[in-house]
Amino acid sequence: MLNVDLIEKIGKIVGKDNLSAATCELYCYSSDASQIRGMPELVIKPLTTVQVSDIVRIAYEHGIPVTTRGAGTGLSGGCVPLEGGIVLDMSGMNRIVEMDFDNLQVVVEPGIVQEKLNKALEPYGFFFPPDPGSSAMCTLGGLIANNGSGMRSVKYGTTRSYVLGLEVVMADGKIIRTGSKTMKTVVGYSLTDLMVGSEGTLGIITQAIIKVRAIPKESSVLFASFDSPEIAGKAVVRVLSSGIIPSACEILDANIIRAINTYDPKLGLPLAGAILLFEVDGTEAEVKEGIGLIVKTCEGLSSDIRTASDKKERDEIWAARRLVGAAISRLDPMRTRVYVGEDVGVPIKEIPRMLRKVDEISREFKLPIMTYGHIGDGNLHTGMCIDMLSDEAWKKLNAAADKIHRTAIEIGGTVTAEHGVGSARSEYMRLELGNALDVMITIKKALDPKGILNPGKMGV
Amino acid sequence: MLNVDLIEKIGKIVGKDNLSAATCELYCYSSDASQIRGMPELVIKPLTTVQVSDIVRIAYEHGIPVTTRGAGTGLSGGCVPLEGGIVLDMSGMNRIVEMDFDNLQVVVEPGIVQEKLNKALEPYGFFFPPDPGSSAMCTLGGLIANNGSGMRSVKYGTTRSYVLGLEVVMADGKIIRTGSKTMKTVVGYSLTDLMVGSEGTLGIITQAIIKVRAIPKESSVLFASFDSPEIAGKAVVRVLSSGIIPSACEILDANIIRAINTYDPKLGLPLAGAILLFEVDGTEAEVKEGIGLIVKTCEGLSSDIRTASDKKERDEIWAARRLVGAAISRLDPMRTRVYVGEDVGVPIKEIPRMLRKVDEISREFKLPIMTYGHIGDGNLHTGMCIDMLSDEAWKKLNAAADKIHRTAIEIGGTVTAEHGVGSARSEYMRLELGNALDVMITIKKALDPKGILNPGKMGV
Repeated sequence: MLNVDLIEKIGKIVGKDNLSAATCELYCYSSDASQIRGMPELVIKPLTTVQVSDIVRIAYEHGIPVTTRGAGTGLSGGCVPLEGGIVLDMSGMNRIVEMDFDNLQVVVEPGIVQEKLNKALEPYGFFFPPDPGSSAMCTLGGLIANNGSGMRSVKYGTTRSYVLGLEVVMADGKIIRTGSKTMKTVVGYSLTDLMVGSEGTLGIITQAIIKVRAIPKESSVLFASFDSPEIAGKAVVRVLSSGIIPSACEILDANIIRAINTYDPKLGLPLAGAILLFEVDGTEAEVKEGIGLIVKTCEGLSSDIRTASDKKERDEIWAARRLVGAAISRLDPMRTRVYVGEDVGVPIKEIPRMLRKVDEISREFKLPIMTYGHIGDGNLHTGMCIDMLSDEAWKKLNAAADKIHRTAIEIGGTVTAEHGVGSARSEYMRLELGNALDVMITIKKALDPKGILNPGKMGV
Repeated sequence: MLNVDLIEKIGKIVGKDNLSAATCELYCYSSDASQIRGMPELVIKPLTTVQVSDIVRIAYEHGIPVTTRGAGTGLSGGCVPLEGGIVLDMSGMNRIVEMDFDNLQVVVEPGIVQEKLNKALEPYGFFFPPDPGSSAMCTLGGLIANNGSGMRSVKYGTTRSYVLGLEVVMADGKIIRTGSKTMKTVVGYSLTDLMVGSEGTLGIITQAIIKVRAIPKESSVLFASFDSPEIAGKAVVRVLSSGIIPSACEILDANIIRAINTYDPKLGLPLAGAILLFEVDGTEAEVKEGIGLIVKTCEGLSSDIRTASDKKERDEIWAARRLVGAAISRLDPMRTRVYVGEDVGVPIKEIPRMLRKVDEISREFKLPIMTYGHIGDGNLHTGMCIDMLSDEAWKKLNAAADKIHRTAIEIGGTVTAEHGVGSARSEYMRLELGNALDVMITIKKALDPKGILNPGKMGV
């Protein structure tokens, strides 16, 4: 248990200004962007790896839970301290330690915000591709711990693809380094990959070597309407197997189209069964050729194809996609968009089937469900809005979300393609992973025998 | 210990034709393509996952070592049974279980040979990119267990990038499934990534879900000479940071150029300080543009640039690269190319420095060292030839290799970029990984408490 002596001891490590046990402060650290809540007993803002190590060593000795937090933009309760204890707010460790473009990499601290990193890289002609919806706020540490991705992962992969190495504080306070500045190594188990996506349950990331890419010179977007999501799904499979890899491939269903048109009638999206948005980036020739090939591939399937002729039109089309979250939330002032059951992924060819199932679930529970998402990698976001003061509405929502999760698993998919397990989805771990969950638990027990790191998450 | 009763019991599982304890047979399984040797007591050729599980369960009960083997093309002793026991020859489990191109994936058994898989994929327009020198023989299971790569990894990544999921038999015989047919999932620790590159020390791969890519429509090669490896290194950094990602980027040093010209004078390679070979693939426009940009980028640095004008010339240039192994081995009939210290990797910008160091080591030990490799990802292969009957020569070679390994680590590199640790490089694990090796050992002990899986490898 945390007592005054321990708090004083920790205060000596980080300085009195960098920790707080005041209720108003603790309350700020009791949630993320989901509805999950849990109060910490102490919030600490470490500034160095050695401070993190010293704090964790004390926590380990006394069996105090340690939950690590970046910007708190997660949607699964991942950084919510369910069992109290310490929250480590990593936002103070936000430096770019090294810009090493000759090696196509940068070394960063975990608290740096995605957009800030990209702004710092831009003058040098480089970028860090993973771009979740929260990129203006989310931290690199959070992205790594959750293996975040977003719209560009169909071409550029998830955060995992960019992590060359990590500095990690283990449960007993030991500092290790995984990976290296080398682009390719097969020395040892990939501890880097084990840490990526482990949501703070195996160690605390205090530094990362991140691969960067040259900013593509051009990009263009294309916008194709289809009579049904099934036909849109077919078009996606055809495009991806043609060898063209778009930098984004998004779907909007009929409900989302209506929502966007209600939100901003000027956009005037065609009232199709589904719309696909493709973005192609690269050199001028690549973009021209890519867009041309997608148009050709969609012909005969799509009822209407529009290519953005200039930057203005491109921005307008893309703005429509970015509006989705807002459009859903503003459909009905009495209802709030709730992120539950919102992140399933399925094998690409199962997308039309999953979309049909979501529609059935929507009708069964008499709950409007709007679907959009990264169809290029099978990731569907289902948007549901409820009156948050109604117990009845919550019950219905949870039942619908449960059915969405079980359906995704049944057809070979996953309950979370990018938002994380946290505590929101830990109950589905056994169903999706089977006895592989036991292997996870064995690893967790071996590396964190006292279970102090982010307890209550990921089903371990 | 293996006794007659146990052998009989195992015989009932796999059938008498699929196991052998005959010395001549055991001898065939006592080596890989390195100089490392170790005799097994029993060789078993399982045909199903359940057979593997049943065998491992017996081995676990009796504490018998189990070493898994694909085609035995490894260069680190990885599949050599150093502590006797059982060798599991997986070459009988070689089916393509499912071709699922709508999901851009195939499901395979581990014994399938890389080239055979690619021949089966070709008519459908797909391929599996990782292509080590041994692709005509090596198995997918071996590639996965070693995270194999080769010339194309600069663009296409290593085997890791293609493994969506695995079926694995754990040390106690339990069968687990990791990953899924979904392109993107963040459910749980990435056990798939933990298994990839674990060289059979954590589990036995019995099935894999493999992502495939569309075969690029065109490819072209370019061949640039430089006065020194340093300048060649600069050109590589410039090309990679320009946004063009070649599908191969290889270096040949002056010694290798001479070796190839001696082997096949018709090729007439220019006697430069170093030659870079670039391959660009993609659509016609991409290839044309890529080659053009590389030419432009190399101008002012390269003393001579040749672009292959047609397929014949392209094949000739590429053949020169493929000749390297043979050229080294045939320089002197009294000497044999030995694969020791042959696989270091360094951060890209350190390549010129590493090349200089190798040159110094060559002069210090009076041992000709020829260097070539995948400069695009910092992977250098150092070729040394010795009189294998001379103890003196072996001593010199091992001392030189030791210095090469230590130098690579000193400048932020790795002792093995793609060939694996096995037993050949396990002594360097502590030096390269520091206390991260303890984390590896903790995981190994947790998942294989009796240490029966491929003992004596990877320093665990």
